[in-house]
Amino acid sequence: MRALRWHGRGDLRLEEVPEPPEPGPGQAIVEVAYSGICGTDLHEYRHGPNLIRTGPHPLTGLAPPFTLGHEFSGRVVALGGEVPGIGVGTRVAVDPCLRCGVCRWCRHGEYHICAKGGSLGLAADGAFAPLVTVPAEGLVPIPDGVSDRLAALAEPLAVGLHAVRRAAVQPGDHVLLLGAGPIGVAALLALKLAGAAGIYVSEPVPERARCAAELGATEVFDPGRTDVRREVFLRTGRVGPDVVVEATGLPELAELAVTTVRRGGRAVLAGISGGSASLPLTQIVPFERTVLGSLGYNFDIPRVLELIATARLDPSPLLTGVYPLARGLDAFGELGSRHHLKILLAPEER
Amino acid sequence: MRALRWHGRGDLRLEEVPEPPEPGPGQAIVEVAYSGICGTDLHEYRHGPNLIRTGPHPLTGLAPPFTLGHEFSGRVVALGGEVPGIGVGTRVAVDPCLRCGVCRWCRHGEYHICAKGGSLGLAADGAFAPLVTVPAEGLVPIPDGVSDRLAALAEPLAVGLHAVRRAAVQPGDHVLLLGAGPIGVAALLALKLAGAAGIYVSEPVPERARCAAELGATEVFDPGRTDVRREVFLRTGRVGPDVVVEATGLPELAELAVTTVRRGGRAVLAGISGGSASLPLTQIVPFERTVLGSLGYNFDIPRVLELIATARLDPSPLLTGVYPLARGLDAFGELGSRHHLKILLAPEER
Repeated sequence: MRALRWHGRGDLRLEEVPEPPEPGPGQAIVEVAYSGICGTDLHEYRHGPNLIRTGPHPLTGLAPPFTLGHEFSGRVVALGGEVPGIGVGTRVAVDPCLRCGVCRWCRHGEYHICAKGGSLGLAADGAFAPLVTVPAEGLVPIPDGVSDRLAALAEPLAVGLHAVRRAAVQPGDHVLLLGAGPIGVAALLALKLAGAAGIYVSEPVPERARCAAELGATEVFDPGRTDVRREVFLRTGRVGPDVVVEATGLPELAELAVTTVRRGGRAVLAGISGGSASLPLTQIVPFERTVLGSLGYNFDIPRVLELIATARLDPSPLLTGVYPLARGLDAFGELGSRHHLKILLAPEER
Repeated sequence: MRALRWHGRGDLRLEEVPEPPEPGPGQAIVEVAYSGICGTDLHEYRHGPNLIRTGPHPLTGLAPPFTLGHEFSGRVVALGGEVPGIGVGTRVAVDPCLRCGVCRWCRHGEYHICAKGGSLGLAADGAFAPLVTVPAEGLVPIPDGVSDRLAALAEPLAVGLHAVRRAAVQPGDHVLLLGAGPIGVAALLALKLAGAAGIYVSEPVPERARCAAELGATEVFDPGRTDVRREVFLRTGRVGPDVVVEATGLPELAELAVTTVRRGGRAVLAGISGGSASLPLTQIVPFERTVLGSLGYNFDIPRVLELIATARLDPSPLLTGVYPLARGLDAFGELGSRHHLKILLAPEER
């Protein structure tokens, strides 16, 4: 089968690989319907390795090259054992987290911060291929009425939902959202669901700003032309936002989040980047602020699918392109233009 | 009357000042029984001005010199209006927070982070004097059976209790406490009350380390001779502590707190210093840590007094010296030796 594989920075190859072997105990084979390109994938391609380890991964023992792709939907075609509620033919989204299963965090259900954790598509072969081997515990049935395309968006949506849950956003809260890329838009949709009274968005790219406005942002600011901190301060009765969600991974925006949230407020940092940054201590203690790291998701993919199925969440504006896997490299180039939010790749027939 | 007043860095003066005027509406006059010297006072004396403003304070409009002293007990001798449950002669501890009463935080009961907030003894005359004018809302009746001396300790104890409440410490948690000075010891007592299963303390001063051990620390480490992070990691099953409480205000220990707490854990920063520091972002997001600033107390002084009255909290080990106010300057020198935890000053008779 043909797969899109990461060999190194700037070196993505569409190449022939063997089909996966029969699934072992606790494994399943999923025939991929759609698989989204994540900002992480783009970052690995352009600036990596970042999350990809060049040597053997401590959990999987595998080293690159890897088939990328960790945001996907499809159909179970083989199961290496019984999985409650799932059989061959079940339509599934997949939680791509790889976990050791025995560390303190896995035992407590906090598999997303497993001491050795990794992800399909970054620490093992992912879903930019017609077939992918997945751990059975990652299989999430797609509810009736949710399309394969929307189900492939569940993973990035879960990142936004998780950040909003981490911040414990309450109905009536005023929130500043930094960034309206895919994770920012996912957070925006979750903030609307959480009943936020004001959702202010900072986003420099016009297409993304327009999308955020259409999706119900109270107001969208261009940070290149506006003092966002001041404008939000004025719009919240000179108080500041109750919550700031940082959804870009830009280190300087993490600092902006912490210094902009109101006294006693919560800044949730949901963006990951390879860079390092610092947070000013004198802005945390005397104002009794809370800074919350937010990593990925933790049982949030089934929540997202249920919210889509019950028409509480409509992620379709996130989807801005679908390419055949054979044109995957073009799609990476397109996504880099930042006019897109989410591009799905559709593997060719086997 | 004679008062101990801050005129500038290194310039504390015991000098004659007028007695306070009749209390205005919402004010009371307290005859001071005991007033503790805070690390903040020592810091203002040696390295200030830090919290003291050299110009008019935005809330009180007052500028130095100020009579120091914000940890105190005494007896109400005059009231500028009715205060429920309090009359002339009532023994009281005092919450020394000054507040505007009308900002978002005051209206929500978060007076400790009032937008203009200050403190008696730092933004208005405090209790290193026989008489002090206080806002009536700061009066806290001392329960029967709690001595004036122990009641004067309620304020620093409240700082420790507040930090432990901010961190939401649960029974069975393992906690690393950085520093066993007065606030650290207060936090230690609160951690014991909260049912922490392991309380590891990092403290370089032998007298303080001994005190922490006697008060029930599971183990006390000398950070100059031990890799505290590693030792606590080993004692928590290679997981790390659920909570780290930073109680020194040293910027480098704030960073240690954040990098030592377990994945998914909570680092509460309760120390204030004039310095600035940075917190490594890459240690927060990928490990989904939470960093909580903790400032002072918020209705914690009555909680502390009730806990003392019901014999759940015995703060007497905190008290290492009592000096007459006339020897206040000597007491400042003594406290600087760090062999002491808390020294109380007792004003002479009027």
